[in-house]
Amino acid sequence: MNSASYEAFMQPRSVAIIGASDDGQKTGGRTLRYLDKYGYEGEVHPINPRRPTVQGKQAYPDLTAVGRPVDLAVIVTPAEHSVAALESCVAAEVPAVIMISSGFAELNAEGAQRQRELEAVLRGSSTRVLGPNCVGLVSVRSRLAATINTGMDQDRFDLRDGGIAFLTQSGAMGAFVFNMSQTRRVGLGSLISTGNEMDISFPEMMHALLDDPKVTGVAGYIEGIRDGEAFAGALRHAQEVGKPLAFLKVGRSPLGVEAIASHTGALAGTDAVYTGVFEQYGVTRIWGVEALADWAQMVDLARPPAGNRLSVTTTSGGGGVLVADHCTDLGISMATWEGEWQQKLAGALPEYLSARNPIDMAGTGGSSEALREVLALMGEHPGTDVAMVLIGNLDKEEDPLIEVLDEAHRSMDKPLVVVWVGGSGRPVVELTSRGVPAYTDPGRALQALSGLMAAHRAAGRPPAAAPPVDTGRRAQARALLAEARQAGLGVLDEFRAKKLLGLYGVPVVQEAVAQDPDHAAAEAAWLGFPVAVKLLADDVAHKSELGGVLLGLSSADEVSVAAKDMLARLPREVAEGARLLVQPMVAPGLEMLLGIKRDEAFGPVLVLGLGGTWTEVLEDVQLRLPPVSPEDVTDALSRLRSARLLGPFRGAPARDQEAVVAAAQALAELALELGDEIAELDINPLIVGARGDGACAVDAVVIPRAAAVPSDH
Amino acid sequence: MNSASYEAFMQPRSVAIIGASDDGQKTGGRTLRYLDKYGYEGEVHPINPRRPTVQGKQAYPDLTAVGRPVDLAVIVTPAEHSVAALESCVAAEVPAVIMISSGFAELNAEGAQRQRELEAVLRGSSTRVLGPNCVGLVSVRSRLAATINTGMDQDRFDLRDGGIAFLTQSGAMGAFVFNMSQTRRVGLGSLISTGNEMDISFPEMMHALLDDPKVTGVAGYIEGIRDGEAFAGALRHAQEVGKPLAFLKVGRSPLGVEAIASHTGALAGTDAVYTGVFEQYGVTRIWGVEALADWAQMVDLARPPAGNRLSVTTTSGGGGVLVADHCTDLGISMATWEGEWQQKLAGALPEYLSARNPIDMAGTGGSSEALREVLALMGEHPGTDVAMVLIGNLDKEEDPLIEVLDEAHRSMDKPLVVVWVGGSGRPVVELTSRGVPAYTDPGRALQALSGLMAAHRAAGRPPAAAPPVDTGRRAQARALLAEARQAGLGVLDEFRAKKLLGLYGVPVVQEAVAQDPDHAAAEAAWLGFPVAVKLLADDVAHKSELGGVLLGLSSADEVSVAAKDMLARLPREVAEGARLLVQPMVAPGLEMLLGIKRDEAFGPVLVLGLGGTWTEVLEDVQLRLPPVSPEDVTDALSRLRSARLLGPFRGAPARDQEAVVAAAQALAELALELGDEIAELDINPLIVGARGDGACAVDAVVIPRAAAVPSDH
Repeated sequence: MNSASYEAFMQPRSVAIIGASDDGQKTGGRTLRYLDKYGYEGEVHPINPRRPTVQGKQAYPDLTAVGRPVDLAVIVTPAEHSVAALESCVAAEVPAVIMISSGFAELNAEGAQRQRELEAVLRGSSTRVLGPNCVGLVSVRSRLAATINTGMDQDRFDLRDGGIAFLTQSGAMGAFVFNMSQTRRVGLGSLISTGNEMDISFPEMMHALLDDPKVTGVAGYIEGIRDGEAFAGALRHAQEVGKPLAFLKVGRSPLGVEAIASHTGALAGTDAVYTGVFEQYGVTRIWGVEALADWAQMVDLARPPAGNRLSVTTTSGGGGVLVADHCTDLGISMATWEGEWQQKLAGALPEYLSARNPIDMAGTGGSSEALREVLALMGEHPGTDVAMVLIGNLDKEEDPLIEVLDEAHRSMDKPLVVVWVGGSGRPVVELTSRGVPAYTDPGRALQALSGLMAAHRAAGRPPAAAPPVDTGRRAQARALLAEARQAGLGVLDEFRAKKLLGLYGVPVVQEAVAQDPDHAAAEAAWLGFPVAVKLLADDVAHKSELGGVLLGLSSADEVSVAAKDMLARLPREVAEGARLLVQPMVAPGLEMLLGIKRDEAFGPVLVLGLGGTWTEVLEDVQLRLPPVSPEDVTDALSRLRSARLLGPFRGAPARDQEAVVAAAQALAELALELGDEIAELDINPLIVGARGDGACAVDAVVIPRAAAVPSDH
Repeated sequence: MNSASYEAFMQPRSVAIIGASDDGQKTGGRTLRYLDKYGYEGEVHPINPRRPTVQGKQAYPDLTAVGRPVDLAVIVTPAEHSVAALESCVAAEVPAVIMISSGFAELNAEGAQRQRELEAVLRGSSTRVLGPNCVGLVSVRSRLAATINTGMDQDRFDLRDGGIAFLTQSGAMGAFVFNMSQTRRVGLGSLISTGNEMDISFPEMMHALLDDPKVTGVAGYIEGIRDGEAFAGALRHAQEVGKPLAFLKVGRSPLGVEAIASHTGALAGTDAVYTGVFEQYGVTRIWGVEALADWAQMVDLARPPAGNRLSVTTTSGGGGVLVADHCTDLGISMATWEGEWQQKLAGALPEYLSARNPIDMAGTGGSSEALREVLALMGEHPGTDVAMVLIGNLDKEEDPLIEVLDEAHRSMDKPLVVVWVGGSGRPVVELTSRGVPAYTDPGRALQALSGLMAAHRAAGRPPAAAPPVDTGRRAQARALLAEARQAGLGVLDEFRAKKLLGLYGVPVVQEAVAQDPDHAAAEAAWLGFPVAVKLLADDVAHKSELGGVLLGLSSADEVSVAAKDMLARLPREVAEGARLLVQPMVAPGLEMLLGIKRDEAFGPVLVLGLGGTWTEVLEDVQLRLPPVSPEDVTDALSRLRSARLLGPFRGAPARDQEAVVAAAQALAELALELGDEIAELDINPLIVGARGDGACAVDAVVIPRAAAVPSDH
């Protein structure tokens, strides 16, 4: 989206409402009413061919009749008039359209047909459309409530601006979160409902928001992303510009996926892919509704933390223990107070309290003077990156405490987070409205804080760049795949599969192809004993199930006898024309798996895991999108539950993790160059030696994509 | 605690406050002020030798001067007067004393000495003491605020009674949770701060609360339980009387343990033991502060669910998806609507909405008429155990919706849970005060609901009973241990260890003891090849590290040669006097570990896990307290992350889980009979065959307790 379109959505000089109703309670009348209620100051033109005025405003029969340029048109007509309405917008060169009308692809086949008509109207024009089937958009900076969301029917808050944009694939959930946040005085700067994403997709709007200097972070509710590549691009962009992201991605479970199918017909996608993508790009994953508002508040209000060392002062020693537990869960460390700093702290506390972090002030924490002194020390203490205050109740002390906390927040150059449990709830709202992040529960506050910390870590880590395509190598690889396709093979044989891997620099076991058992014995002698002998036959993906893998043969005789036996046991159709693959036995090491699988939305995805039983018992794999940096792979490996096996472990030396990283990066390059042509690729096992001894792909399966159309872009 | 003492604490006819101050803001004056503020109707006698009246009430110089029986004395004097104050209570035969004064064992050695003096005063008397160093007790039913907790300084709520008692080892945390709950109109019937637990311990008070017919559940904040046996007894009692329990146990992490040590000096205990104990007795573990109030609200208000099938109706399709995800995480299933019920549901919804669960009512859910109809169907639908409504905002519709929800709740005989996200917050408080469990976040509501469901499942499961002690068997076992002790052995040799196991019916591998390699070869021939030959020497716990384990020997010659080699390689001091253990090789199976370890608080604890690498990589063990029922063991096995290996798995048959259960129960009996005499016992591996093939302990280490004093109780 270009910046003119974006501005037309977020800060339009004029708005036309096509289908505006005189009844402000009806869907068609609400937008006009809300624009007025929240004080939008641009021009507003109701379009209604049947009335001279709408809700007291002059109405026009159509857009042309307005006679002035319109930046934003909101279409609230019934679906059957939507095509004409959009045509009028395109004709009038309206840059931005919000299509609230529903009854399109989300409803039935007839609706889908109507949506295609809308797409046809749009083709070639510069008009951009949000929706259809969305609840609209709120842009707080321009007091624009271009929405039908009845959450705007409230008299509790005036809109509060803030740096966090909220993008949602569910209108109602968006309305809930926006309302909850504003009630808590958390400023969400915008609420944007993407609806059917006929024209503007979630990733495209996200990209545009990230380019807005007023936006400091983006939060979102996601059911399913259709264009994974665009989404990943937007995530990389966020990392480049250093703006934090947090998403509540639903459809994690089979029940959730089913509910999405019945809700919007969208595809939830494979959750493990989202998990991997979020981890890769430093996106905070949100698990609940309130947690979204908690995150937005923290990221909007808190100063950037320089590190993850927390000091907490509290009126509850027990609360301090709870904070320490939560911190451990979330990877936040407790700041250490030593030497002169410990002495200073001791000086600020009564004798019977110990000068340690968590700083238990017991009852004295309710005194604003005592608290001020400890807060000043936390602000100055060089070992403290984030200061937290955990208090509770204290109805009678609210006002002086609010002043002390506000003052301390203003005078500190590090983040201060307040948790005020119980009590009237007023201090939390008051502090938030003064710009101090304040919470009602220590766990929720720390969860949000850990998101802030993760975002600042991620912002410092540039996303991996894709290496340039090696056209020569790609041509060779394609020739291999074409050969297999021509031979009508669904699966590349092991020899070709490893040749393909070798092209990209994945280390593979040395090997020779033999025509018959005696030839195999001769090759084995060249390679050196012990060897493995494997069946090499067309379209056999799982040769070990056929008895086609012989391991640890230690003499030429043994090779020749065992191979003859094997061939004799095979079904005739397999044995005929079968050849034999001879490989030296690889020294035992840690068995890992490395692969590529295709995701519907994201395309080729890199799979990393421990081999065999581990993966099956624990479903312990990590997924990442190519390209991957060495840090991406190292981080993914560290998140395997079985990561300890990479050692040193139980007397076994540490494994050659660098070799795994190199192999994963090589495979990512392969995926980037050939991704569209490969349905699945599995290296299992990749045997990983001790540090310095490298890694080696011992077996591999490659399934080319049936209808792959090579492209050179 | 007998019921008279309990009644004196919870429903005293008269209260004396020893050390009452005229200044109601001071610690010494608060209790008197709060008793008045919250309308306690019994007699109140301030004791203060220096004033004729205190806060306008007639004061007495001492207890004797009161001249009337006192049920409850609250001691708020400085520590130096506490001994005399307690002496006066004992002399006056006051049944219940709350000792709020601090400056005892929690402070320093001098304080600890003073606490011992208090204990001496108490010895032999019938006076029971809560504290010292506690914030007191609130008993809502008698409007008794016998506390110094400044959370009582509020004018927002009147005390609301409820079935949940709240027991806390942190005064301030207790005050926070109590205040937060009352503000939300969640009735906590009591708040009891246990302080230093000099006399009345957390488990003892818990036991007494469980016997109170007005108490329907107990929630608690725990830092560390000193008497694990009493605690386990109270948990069993809760299961017997079918009352749900939930605990926020802190000190889960090393940081938390450190914070506890500095807070109260208590021992946090091993967290994995608490995890195991809570799982065993169906206790809900709580992770955060608000979650405690969420649980209390659900258990106090919701009807018992007949099962775990949830139907949810919502104005947000996206919210429905989120609910489905949360349910999957929490083991709650989504009810299925089929046939006539689906038709009825379709009849209640506009045509464009699909009649499925989650029931997405979209905008129509905000209409009270439409919602009433769907609520009625959810109430009647036989496949729905729990009904949930998820709505949000709707400021203008609050009143009619509250009426419809309240009505539906009253007319249903299953639990109805309301989640109202965003909006003014008033409906949530109003519904709660009408007895409808209402929440602001679907995840929090479902978390609390899963606690309720777990409690009802646990209530139906009787705790395992300890079998009678088999004194003959115990005498034999003790003889074995005594023999080892007399020989000065720190570790039982494998032969004796397995003899001990055999006594209790744990299946052990067949074996013979040989004096030398040739004798071993002869024994092996009797047992049948292949065999294992192991070093049998004093005080060697890890013989495999010494090269003292030979496996798979298949002839008499092989046995004799290999055993001679082994002995020759051993250090002379080990080899001298060493004997050999000969065992037939056990058919390969799943290797598990089974053991007993001692916990400081809970005594002997049963350990279950997968053998070897699994346990070390994942720290994947489950702990349970003896005695264990077959269900306890089965449940523990199912919670192992590696549980899938019990199969059927990867072509391997399902393992003989019954044999594992029997072995675990046998070991639990051993722990019960000999627990005090055993420091550690490890069966590793227990080889588990396919179903019907049994299990077999192949190796075992038993470390007797050094200073064990056998007792016969």
